[in-house]
Amino acid sequence: MNVIEIEKEIAGKIAADYITDGMIVGLGTGSTVSYAIKEIGERIKKGLKIKAVSTSKSTSIMAQKLNIPLLSIDQVDSIDLTVDGADEIDTNFNGIKGGGGALLIEKIIASISRENIWVIDSNKMVNKLGAFPLPIEVVPYAVSTVMKKLEKKNFKPILRKLNNMNFITDNNNYIIDLNLGHIKDPKCLEIELNMIPGVIENGLFLNTVDTVIVGKSSEYEIIENKFKAKFF
Amino acid sequence: MNVIEIEKEIAGKIAADYITDGMIVGLGTGSTVSYAIKEIGERIKKGLKIKAVSTSKSTSIMAQKLNIPLLSIDQVDSIDLTVDGADEIDTNFNGIKGGGGALLIEKIIASISRENIWVIDSNKMVNKLGAFPLPIEVVPYAVSTVMKKLEKKNFKPILRKLNNMNFITDNNNYIIDLNLGHIKDPKCLEIELNMIPGVIENGLFLNTVDTVIVGKSSEYEIIENKFKAKFF
Repeated sequence: MNVIEIEKEIAGKIAADYITDGMIVGLGTGSTVSYAIKEIGERIKKGLKIKAVSTSKSTSIMAQKLNIPLLSIDQVDSIDLTVDGADEIDTNFNGIKGGGGALLIEKIIASISRENIWVIDSNKMVNKLGAFPLPIEVVPYAVSTVMKKLEKKNFKPILRKLNNMNFITDNNNYIIDLNLGHIKDPKCLEIELNMIPGVIENGLFLNTVDTVIVGKSSEYEIIENKFKAKFF
Repeated sequence: MNVIEIEKEIAGKIAADYITDGMIVGLGTGSTVSYAIKEIGERIKKGLKIKAVSTSKSTSIMAQKLNIPLLSIDQVDSIDLTVDGADEIDTNFNGIKGGGGALLIEKIIASISRENIWVIDSNKMVNKLGAFPLPIEVVPYAVSTVMKKLEKKNFKPILRKLNNMNFITDNNNYIIDLNLGHIKDPKCLEIELNMIPGVIENGLFLNTVDTVIVGKSSEYEIIENKFKAKFF
């Protein structure tokens, strides 16, 4: 196991410690979160009593194998704690998510979660967002018009493919990845993108995370976001 | 035929006069636009040569019956002129559209149109928007979370139904109608709605229309929007 994989495993396992009996837990998507989910499965074997809401088909399959009881989004008013990954986090706790294509559901789940924990390896901490491609989820009908608008803005859009076909999200939409290099004003960009007709969501997660758990070689660091505006 | 129907017919027919040979024309959706589409069909019989892009399945069916040649959205870079209806227009040329449920495609088409003409009867002119319910198009997965957020904001949301089933848009999404009474700041509201995770689009059409054609009893009035910021 290489260092990054060890960091992911540590961060994931530590996040699982935050979960206590009776919680409704949001389960994110991706390689680091999967370590948290495995650990939650272990704790359930030992008697932990929780219910979970999944952010993707792949996470649902994993949770079912581990006997983690799942609720649908329609069955909950709010979520106590969500554990998710991130593709980049800057020093202001802004994040890019959606490398795995689950950004829309992840954003919906995050928006109803009282507390959001992100688990990452040390490579994900950056000074400015944007080296990682920023994904946006787009209505299939609008893909050609949205691509043209993004090209005009010089956002260097690439329609995401999988096996030479358009990548399709769990909500039957397409993903366009923007290659921005760096993002000067994430808040402004978030609004600009969401206002383009046909854009459903973008992978900027601002004012979302409460606690970041970063794997650092064989150690970890817990960073609290003291700036977060609390809605609950 | 009652006065409102006469007004719709006059406004629609006058709009068709704006169309000239060689244009790519956007065809809106709704009762007033259908008079424009019929008139375009008549002009095509007499030799008018245009191609059109439709905003809904119902408009496509009508266009095909009238031998109006259709292009898909992917086949055009821009549209010369779009004729569409509106549910409300205020004195600043802000509009509410989407009573028929086609707001998403109508907004995409409007956003790539060099010129947008709206055809309305005299009842649609208002001082302030909001007496007409404001529709928003929502990802089905998110409908329960979005409804709760809108209720908290006191936007009086109602999930649109058709024959006791959820109304489904041409893009397989749901419509929530907001009963706002009046809208103080349409621009601010548009951003607020689009920033809710799971909301795809809303029925506020701001800085969109170039020319409004209003039926007035057996007459009509043409009102030019001199404030419009031109993107082309």
